Amino acid sequence: MSDERPVGVFDSGLGGLTVARAIRAVLPAERLLYLGDTARVPYGTRSERTVMRYARICARHLASEGIKVLVVACNTVSAVALDMLRVELDVPVIGVIGPGAQAGVAASRRGRLGVIATRGTIASGAYVRAVAALDPRVEVVPQAAPLFVPLAEEGWVRGEVAERVAEAYLAPLADAGVDALVLGCTHYPLLREVIETTGRRLCGELTVADSAEAAATELATLLRERGLTHDGPGELRLRVTDQPARFGEVASRFLGADLESFEVRQVDL
Amino acid sequence: MSDERPVGVFDSGLGGLTVARAIRAVLPAERLLYLGDTARVPYGTRSERTVMRYARICARHLASEGIKVLVVACNTVSAVALDMLRVELDVPVIGVIGPGAQAGVAASRRGRLGVIATRGTIASGAYVRAVAALDPRVEVVPQAAPLFVPLAEEGWVRGEVAERVAEAYLAPLADAGVDALVLGCTHYPLLREVIETTGRRLCGELTVADSAEAAATELATLLRERGLTHDGPGELRLRVTDQPARFGEVASRFLGADLESFEVRQVDL
Repeated sequence: MSDERPVGVFDSGLGGLTVARAIRAVLPAERLLYLGDTARVPYGTRSERTVMRYARICARHLASEGIKVLVVACNTVSAVALDMLRVELDVPVIGVIGPGAQAGVAASRRGRLGVIATRGTIASGAYVRAVAALDPRVEVVPQAAPLFVPLAEEGWVRGEVAERVAEAYLAPLADAGVDALVLGCTHYPLLREVIETTGRRLCGELTVADSAEAAATELATLLRERGLTHDGPGELRLRVTDQPARFGEVASRFLGADLESFEVRQVDL
Repeated sequence: MSDERPVGVFDSGLGGLTVARAIRAVLPAERLLYLGDTARVPYGTRSERTVMRYARICARHLASEGIKVLVVACNTVSAVALDMLRVELDVPVIGVIGPGAQAGVAASRRGRLGVIATRGTIASGAYVRAVAALDPRVEVVPQAAPLFVPLAEEGWVRGEVAERVAEAYLAPLADAGVDALVLGCTHYPLLREVIETTGRRLCGELTVADSAEAAATELATLLRERGLTHDGPGELRLRVTDQPARFGEVASRFLGADLESFEVRQVDL
């Protein structure tokens, strides 16, 4: 039995392509349909009401395309709109915060877990709640790290500016004695090297857990358990709500592959 | 004769409050009605088509409120949608690029003028065209400076990160021998000190021209010449399409005044 329906991957923009990349690594035979709301990105600085409105529009579009499961790659949407989407959609919905929290709890030996994310995700308290539900003994130390987003988009992922910014964000986590760190934003995997290097210098030991990889693993388990896997060949199709000038360059950076090999289409939502 | 109708000020978000601030300094007796499209900010990374679509929606809303003139505080909208708005609206429309170019040309003695702005504004070529129309002997050296936007929003307007970023953006302008610099983005006045200090260190001499101040001066001339001035008292009302958590803090930073003194209302557009 092979289920040909695509896996829907939804993000506020192109950052979620790091999640698509992680899924392709774990599940190369699946057909992915990615929707990036590039006309309204970023969600992280908007009110919960506005995020829910935009998320509903985008999820309905993917549902109308016949997906078998929805992966919400966006941390902001996962933080504020996951319950709403689970009620509204007829297919299973996977977010990035639950899997990211689980990976973080597993990574921390001393029970002090740093979480870096956008201001919106941090303010929502979603990672604190998710970790408390898994293991109430683990203390979460949250840190908003908004400048990592433009650094990733601009490709300033190493060098002095990236290092100084990483120091500013990670120093309070080192002071709090964290020994593990969750990358709670789709953009952060691009800065993983400078985050790990700076973090280990400041914290001594530091294990980095990536929400994108954790969500991909959870998706693999879900597809297998419910008999929803596809036997291949895999594919990736992209839908975006806007396609500005540097689109291909930025998208390729997040996907870790040349965008030219994939079908890209614009949809007005 | 006193014209009580408000001056409409439109921006993609809150950055345009630096223009409202400049207008209030020059024309304290005017009634300002500011609209920030905070639900869809930023425009600078979107396609021209999408920017025009959003700008039309917002300008129509201000027109329906009975404004006597529209100031487009947003460089991106000024770059790609000013002609369209002039055709569509029945009131005069002032952008920031024409006045900014004029101030820059006046400031440059050697005829080599740097312009820093978002990628979208730079890619549009609008400043190059505006300067060429004013004085074809002046050479524009354009430089996209996208990271200045989040630095201004985060309040990281001094210190090592701001200095390193300023060096990275201004070094190519110094190499090109500019002696004047236009701040071609609403956010940049907040970083004026680090831009001036770093720019003078790298360029030797450097005169900074601010598009926001230049637009306020042009507005004052237009109102006087057409007999549209208001005798006071002045006021400022804010309309935003979204009002996220840190709204007041960020808005106060751009406005240079405590937001609490002003009427703020959310509109769904």
